[in-house]
Amino acid sequence: MAQIAITLLTKAIEYDLNGRKLESLKLYEDGIEALLKESKAEVDPKRKQHFQAKIIEYMNRAEQVKALITRWRSRGEIRDKIHVVDGATGYSYARVFGKYMTDEVKELMVEEPYVRDHYQICNLVMLCELAVTSCRNLKFVKLLTVRDKKQNDEQGRAFQTLQESLKKQGVEFFVEYSEHMHDRQVILSNGYIIKIGRGLNYFKPVGSKYSLGAFNYHFRECRETNIDVFYCPENDKS
Amino acid sequence: MAQIAITLLTKAIEYDLNGRKLESLKLYEDGIEALLKESKAEVDPKRKQHFQAKIIEYMNRAEQVKALITRWRSRGEIRDKIHVVDGATGYSYARVFGKYMTDEVKELMVEEPYVRDHYQICNLVMLCELAVTSCRNLKFVKLLTVRDKKQNDEQGRAFQTLQESLKKQGVEFFVEYSEHMHDRQVILSNGYIIKIGRGLNYFKPVGSKYSLGAFNYHFRECRETNIDVFYCPENDKS
Repeated sequence: MAQIAITLLTKAIEYDLNGRKLESLKLYEDGIEALLKESKAEVDPKRKQHFQAKIIEYMNRAEQVKALITRWRSRGEIRDKIHVVDGATGYSYARVFGKYMTDEVKELMVEEPYVRDHYQICNLVMLCELAVTSCRNLKFVKLLTVRDKKQNDEQGRAFQTLQESLKKQGVEFFVEYSEHMHDRQVILSNGYIIKIGRGLNYFKPVGSKYSLGAFNYHFRECRETNIDVFYCPENDKS
Repeated sequence: MAQIAITLLTKAIEYDLNGRKLESLKLYEDGIEALLKESKAEVDPKRKQHFQAKIIEYMNRAEQVKALITRWRSRGEIRDKIHVVDGATGYSYARVFGKYMTDEVKELMVEEPYVRDHYQICNLVMLCELAVTSCRNLKFVKLLTVRDKKQNDEQGRAFQTLQESLKKQGVEFFVEYSEHMHDRQVILSNGYIIKIGRGLNYFKPVGSKYSLGAFNYHFRECRETNIDVFYCPENDKS
């Protein structure tokens, strides 16, 4: 087996056992892709067969992780419900997410279609700041979003910057693009799922950059939205 | 006595007794000014004399408050010393000021000569955000700074915006300009004085607006500086 595939799949298994399911799934997928390349290039039929058997084995493991992640997203008992009325203040991310962002959280998955405009990317940066300061064992942040089709690719460069910045804090950042997103939620690997009707972008703009609310969104007025928090203890089996 | 002077001086005495010394001093000064005008316009010599006696009485009271404030600024036993090395992170205002910003704090005095450039005004806004969220009984913020001589008066408009924004939170904001400032310190009315060698502007700029540190300055690198915290229990006599 090629060294790169071995490295990826060894790590995938380690993370899988270690409760770092999101990152593990990515490693399985990358490892399987590497194995597929090896297998195609192989001429010895015996070795080719060995590769194919291994591929099937890892695909089964990856499927199991995927099924677990799907369960996270669809199940869970409701733990909290907040109705934010139009114009209300006091709903910073610290207030909404803070108490669920514990040291048990190793991974974070953000599903949010709109991370394109400047203020939307800023909201993601702010959420990451909170996660890094609140979850001391955070290792991996995955963003599922819709790709911005703009020519200058400001979105891509912004994600690159954020990735480098998170890496300095020991956190991997990975973006997956999707065209057909419906859910807007933040999934924490300690079992909590926070669903916000409007997604992350529920703040109104502040009148001036010198008003309270420029840095601390506790002071920002919000648009009307519902926040539901679910808890799925299965996520916690790590 | 004219109604305006009565209103100002009644409030001055109330705040004086109530531990709101900074705001009280401002009210005494404004009230005395109003009385002086009355006195000048008065033609009846008996009433004129009465005004002058009152002016002397209130000037004495104001002097006492002023002397107390001067004692706050010059005395106090050292409570904490932090040496921030160049490039260090983790020194957000929340870390530096947070534990001293209690519900006992009714007034805040910021002495900082450099509140002119955009990032410097932003630092002041950020400090105010922290004070409002940390000190539930905050009523008054006084800034002592040097006036920016620029034509467009961005500084003046920024302070206006901040004033309106603080007013919505029930906090008065008042700026006094000085040409001869030497101290850089933040004085809390619960007796704590935080002196930072570089004043409020000890953060380095962040590489990009999409890096961690855009909102939470915990992630910002700092310039080398010393932070000394003093405690003067006399401030607390309220």
